[in-house]
Amino acid sequence: MRAEAAPSYVYAPDLGEAGSRIVLSESETHYLVHVCRARVGDRASATDGRGAVGSLRVTTLQPRVTAEVESVTRATPARRAWVWSGAPEGERADWLVEKLAELGVERWQPLQCERGSWRRGAARLDRWRRLSLAGMRQSRRGVLMEVREPVGLPGGLESVPAEAVRWLASPEGPSRPPDPSPGLSVGAIGPAGGFTPAEERAFLGSGFSPISLSRGRLRSETAALGWALWWGLG
Amino acid sequence: MRAEAAPSYVYAPDLGEAGSRIVLSESETHYLVHVCRARVGDRASATDGRGAVGSLRVTTLQPRVTAEVESVTRATPARRAWVWSGAPEGERADWLVEKLAELGVERWQPLQCERGSWRRGAARLDRWRRLSLAGMRQSRRGVLMEVREPVGLPGGLESVPAEAVRWLASPEGPSRPPDPSPGLSVGAIGPAGGFTPAEERAFLGSGFSPISLSRGRLRSETAALGWALWWGLG
Repeated sequence: MRAEAAPSYVYAPDLGEAGSRIVLSESETHYLVHVCRARVGDRASATDGRGAVGSLRVTTLQPRVTAEVESVTRATPARRAWVWSGAPEGERADWLVEKLAELGVERWQPLQCERGSWRRGAARLDRWRRLSLAGMRQSRRGVLMEVREPVGLPGGLESVPAEAVRWLASPEGPSRPPDPSPGLSVGAIGPAGGFTPAEERAFLGSGFSPISLSRGRLRSETAALGWALWWGLG
Repeated sequence: MRAEAAPSYVYAPDLGEAGSRIVLSESETHYLVHVCRARVGDRASATDGRGAVGSLRVTTLQPRVTAEVESVTRATPARRAWVWSGAPEGERADWLVEKLAELGVERWQPLQCERGSWRRGAARLDRWRRLSLAGMRQSRRGVLMEVREPVGLPGGLESVPAEAVRWLASPEGPSRPPDPSPGLSVGAIGPAGGFTPAEERAFLGSGFSPISLSRGRLRSETAALGWALWWGLG
């Protein structure tokens, strides 16, 4: 990539091994050709969104960019985070999704709560998935945050793996949170109106520990971001 | 305030002492009467935005709410934070201002940088000041974040008090940041295009230490929020 071009980082789910040839999707072709102004022979970085990051050399531009995979590095992250979110007010979920992806969260699970429900819809999921991709590209991470369809409580709790460390964002948590642990951590954040006492009991009964992320009362989306930042600092 | 009313928290810069009577501003009158539906005799919380938080009892509603100050508590925070921000992309500053206020930052100073400049304008400053007030109300804090007019570098560095602990958000900082210190901390975050090497040298030469807030590359506004969250966790 020439010096004047934007730094390029493409999503290539079928990245494969060094030496293979890949064809980029329509949207990644557009990004590389029209945003980064790539030419034949240019290099770009790519990820499969599942931990592999590689170097590409562009071989053709039309109708889709094809590239040779020059090298691939696979990393298994020592720590993984899932965020379970009640619905924030208005359209605040859009930037929440972008930020969580930027911070390296592996999975985002919207939660239907008594005091806050998510409107369902394929268009919203599609937009969130595009924002997740934009966040991954921005942060040049090797993991694409998975955006899930909303699920209800308490049944949804059953999908948390047994080994996961579980945190419930709560003003009643310790004022100085502990260091985040290795492995998988799941953070649950209530909707704008908060979890009901019954919902809180369901979390606490499922092994979630309360954690306080600020001395003030945070909006739902700020608390979710706070949890992901706390996790990422460790 | 009746049970069905929203929790009320008003900004009263002339809060004074217990026993005094105050008149709320037009916008706080609107908030208390039309949003919280206060009636004569109701109680509300109030802050002067400079560390004092009190309890009010509403005495009249028209044309402005007047109230009796029943009690006042003054707190001097052990730790204070200022954020110095280069310009993020587009309108991302709006939510940055709201979030920094929500997290308890005391002063926000937009920085004119070589790779990112703030459009000046009274309308923008007014909007940011309203967002700062909304963030304070949301978090029920006793400090109103001061929103300053943009200043340039490196001259602007002279206004940092000698005793302040200084941090420069930088991917080259330590991957595990230290605990934040008591007293005043100043965090500087580059614009969307980053600080230039000369600007970075100006910060480092003025006693700023690099700090890394994530293992990925963060957008300007995410890094600013990350710094404030890190500061607030300590």
